[in-house]
Amino acid sequence: MVQNLHQIVHSVTYTLEQKDEHAFQENIKDLQKYDLTRIFLELSSGEQKLFLEFISIHQLADILSELDGDNQRKVIDMISPHTGTLVITQMNNDDLIEMLSNLGEKKATELLSDTDEEFSQDIETLMEYPPETAGRIMNNQMVWINKSYSVREAVDKLKHFAELAEYLNYLYVIDNDKKLVGVVSYRDLLLADLPQKIEDIMKTRIVTVDAMMDQEEVARIIQRYNFVTIPVVDEEERLLGIVTVDDILDVVYQEAEEDIEKFSASGKAIDFNTKPFTAAKRRLTWLVLLLFIGIVSGSIIASFEETLEQVVALAFFMPMVAGMTGNTGTQSLAVVIRGLTKERVNTKQVLKLLYRELRVGIIIGLTCGALIFVIAYLWQGSAILGLVIGTSLLCTLIIGTLAGTIIPLVLNRLNVDPAVASGPLITTINDILSLLIYFGIATAFLSHLM
Amino acid sequence: MVQNLHQIVHSVTYTLEQKDEHAFQENIKDLQKYDLTRIFLELSSGEQKLFLEFISIHQLADILSELDGDNQRKVIDMISPHTGTLVITQMNNDDLIEMLSNLGEKKATELLSDTDEEFSQDIETLMEYPPETAGRIMNNQMVWINKSYSVREAVDKLKHFAELAEYLNYLYVIDNDKKLVGVVSYRDLLLADLPQKIEDIMKTRIVTVDAMMDQEEVARIIQRYNFVTIPVVDEEERLLGIVTVDDILDVVYQEAEEDIEKFSASGKAIDFNTKPFTAAKRRLTWLVLLLFIGIVSGSIIASFEETLEQVVALAFFMPMVAGMTGNTGTQSLAVVIRGLTKERVNTKQVLKLLYRELRVGIIIGLTCGALIFVIAYLWQGSAILGLVIGTSLLCTLIIGTLAGTIIPLVLNRLNVDPAVASGPLITTINDILSLLIYFGIATAFLSHLM
Repeated sequence: MVQNLHQIVHSVTYTLEQKDEHAFQENIKDLQKYDLTRIFLELSSGEQKLFLEFISIHQLADILSELDGDNQRKVIDMISPHTGTLVITQMNNDDLIEMLSNLGEKKATELLSDTDEEFSQDIETLMEYPPETAGRIMNNQMVWINKSYSVREAVDKLKHFAELAEYLNYLYVIDNDKKLVGVVSYRDLLLADLPQKIEDIMKTRIVTVDAMMDQEEVARIIQRYNFVTIPVVDEEERLLGIVTVDDILDVVYQEAEEDIEKFSASGKAIDFNTKPFTAAKRRLTWLVLLLFIGIVSGSIIASFEETLEQVVALAFFMPMVAGMTGNTGTQSLAVVIRGLTKERVNTKQVLKLLYRELRVGIIIGLTCGALIFVIAYLWQGSAILGLVIGTSLLCTLIIGTLAGTIIPLVLNRLNVDPAVASGPLITTINDILSLLIYFGIATAFLSHLM
Repeated sequence: MVQNLHQIVHSVTYTLEQKDEHAFQENIKDLQKYDLTRIFLELSSGEQKLFLEFISIHQLADILSELDGDNQRKVIDMISPHTGTLVITQMNNDDLIEMLSNLGEKKATELLSDTDEEFSQDIETLMEYPPETAGRIMNNQMVWINKSYSVREAVDKLKHFAELAEYLNYLYVIDNDKKLVGVVSYRDLLLADLPQKIEDIMKTRIVTVDAMMDQEEVARIIQRYNFVTIPVVDEEERLLGIVTVDDILDVVYQEAEEDIEKFSASGKAIDFNTKPFTAAKRRLTWLVLLLFIGIVSGSIIASFEETLEQVVALAFFMPMVAGMTGNTGTQSLAVVIRGLTKERVNTKQVLKLLYRELRVGIIIGLTCGALIFVIAYLWQGSAILGLVIGTSLLCTLIIGTLAGTIIPLVLNRLNVDPAVASGPLITTINDILSLLIYFGIATAFLSHLM
C-alpha cells in the first residue's frame, strides 16, 4: 500500500551523504507526516542532524507533532534556539501544547520567551484548559469569515490562508460580535456564484461544543453526527477553535486503552519499553492491596475453621464458588459500563436494569446450582453436601450479579468513573461475599452433613 | 449545544397535525441525520406514517441509515414498495449493505428485485466481501476524474455530483486503465487556475488500502496519517471505493467494546435492552465452562486432602495465593495485548519482553512473598507455615506473570486474537497452577509444619 519506505530511507540517506539538498527535497516531497517521521527515526544521529538542517520549518513542525516526548526533547536540543522559536509558531496549537507539556515547564518557557507576546499569551491561555477537555485538543487552524462577506471575498480569504485550510472543509461564519452564526463548506463555495452573500448560502443549524466539555463526550457527538470537525465556543457562543476528528480518533483509542488498564488493574502506562523496576512498582500498588484483601478472605475462612475441619470436602468447592461469583460480577459490570458510555440513565432505567439483572442472576443461579448439585452428589456421594454447595452457588450468583450491577451504577451516580470498579475489585468483593454465604450455609447444614 | 430538540419535536408534531407539508419541511430543514432520526423516534406511529410521507427520499435515506435493525424493518414495512426501491438507490452503499443484512435475505432480495440490474449486481458484489474487511465498509460516494482533465472540467464534474461530494474533500484521479494515480483536494481546485491540467496539480504519493484488509488495520492507518478518507483498491490498483473516518470511528468504538467483552468474558452483545433469558443464556456459556474448570481445581485440592486435613490453616491462604496469581497474569496480559495493538513484534522484542516480565515477576514475587511471610508468621505463629506460604507466593507470582505474557504472545503468533485469553481464562489457568505449586510445596514441607 504505502510506497516502499525502505527504498526512500535508502535514497534519503544517499542524498544526505552527498549533501544534496535539492535531491533530498525531491525525495521527501509530498510524503505524509507519519512516513517522514518514520524515515527520520531510521537515521543515525549524524544523519538526523543534517536531515533537520535540510528540511523546511513546515516539515520540521510536522515531525515534531508526530514524535513522542523523548524524541521531541532530542530534536529540540539538536536545533538552534532560533529555529525552535520559528518552528513552534508553525505547529498546530494543539500539537504544540502537547509538546510543551512533554518538554516540561522550564524548556517550554524558554521556547516561548522569544515568540511575540500575543502568541505566547494565546498558548498559555490554552494550556490553562483542564486536561481531557475540548479546550485542550482544539486548534485554531480554521478560517472564519464575517457573514457580510460575498462568496468572492470568502474564496479570497481562503486562498490567503490556504496553508491553514489543508485539512478542513468548512469556513466558519461569525457576526460582528464574533458569535458563530453559520458554516459554509468549500463545496458550497464551489457551487455558489461569486457575488452571492455568505449569509444567504450558509447553514445556520450548527452543532457546537463548549470548551470545558469532556473529550469523551465530544468524541460521542462527532461519532453520532459523522463530523470531521466541530467548532468549540465559549459561553457567549464566540468561536474559540475547532476539534478535528483525527484528534478524536486518538482520544477514542486512548480511552479504550485506559478501560483495559482499569479492567485488568494493570496500573497506568506500562508498555513494552517500561523498565522492570518501574513496571513492578506500578503493578505492586494493586497487588499489595489485593494481598491484604486476601487476608480478609483468609480470616473469614479461619472463623469457619471448625466447619472446615469437620468437612474438608468443603475446601474442594471453595475456589469454584468464589471464582464463579467473581466472574458473574465482572460480566454484569461490563454490561453496565458499556451501557453507560452510550447513554445517560435515569432512575426508571436503573430500576429496570436491576430487575433484569436480578432475573438473570436467578436464571444462572438455578442452572449452575442444579448442575453443581448433581456433580457434587456424584463425586462426593453426599446429597446433603450437594445441596449445600448448590444452594450456596445459587445465592452467591444472584448476589454477585447484583453487586456487579449496583456498584458501577452507584459510582456513576457519584461521578466516579465506574470502570475503576474494575474486574479485580469486584472479584474481591464477590470473593468475600461468596465465602461468607458458602460457609454460612454449610455451618447451618452441618448437623446433616455428618 | 444542539438546538432544543424538544421544541423541534413539538413544532414538527404540530405541522403534522395540521398536515402542513411546507411548514414541516421548514422545521426540519438543514437538520443533521442524527437529530432527524431522534425526532422521528419520538413520534407516535400515526405521526411517523405522515412524517414518512412528507419527507424527501433523500431524508428518508438518511433516517434509514441511522436506525437500528428493528426500526429499519418497521420503516420498510410502513413505506410503499415503490418508495422502498427508490430509497435504497439513494442510500450510501455501505449503509445499504448494513441495512440489507439487518433485514434478512428474503426482504433484501425483495427490495433489490425492482432496482435496475447493474445496481443490484453492484450491491450483491459488495455483500460478498467478508465482514470486518475494508470492502465491507467502503462506499462509492466519491468523485473520480481522468488525469487528462483540466481543472475546469474537474470543477464541472464536481458540480454535477455535488450531492455525493458533501462529506469528502478529495477527487480521485485515475488513468485510462482505471488505475488510481493521484488525488486532488477541493482546496487545490480552488487555488488552481481553471485551464491547468489535473495531472500537474495532483498529488501522486497516495496511501491506499486493499479491499480485503482488516477494518482494524484500516483504522490504524487512518489514525496514523490523520486521514478523513482513504481509497480502497483491488490487486490491480483500480479504485473500488473509499472508507471514511466516520465509519472508522464506529469500528474503533466497536473494537473497544469487544475487547471489554472478552476481558470480562461477558458474552456477546448484551445491552440494557437485552431480554433476561437471552442475556443469561449468553453469559452461561462462559460460566458453565468456568464451573467445570472449577471442578478441576477442586480435584487438585482433593488430591492433597491429607495435607489439608493435617494443616487446615493452609485453606486460609488458598484464595489469596490463587487470587494474586490470577491478577498478576491479567496484568501481564493487558500489557501484552495493548502493546500488540500498537506494533508487530519480532523474536528479539519477544525475548526482551519475556526477560522484562521475568524480572518483574521476581521483584513482585519477592516483595509479596516477604510480606506474606511476616503476616502468616504473626497471625498463625509458625515460621514454617510463613515460609511455605511465602515461598509458594514467590513461585506462583513468577509463573503467573510469565503465563500472562506467554499465552497471548503464542495466540498472536497463531493468528488468534490474544484478547480471547481474556481475564477469566488466564485467571483460571493461573488458579490451577497456583494450587499445584502451593500444595506441592506444603506437602514437601509437611514434616516440619507439624
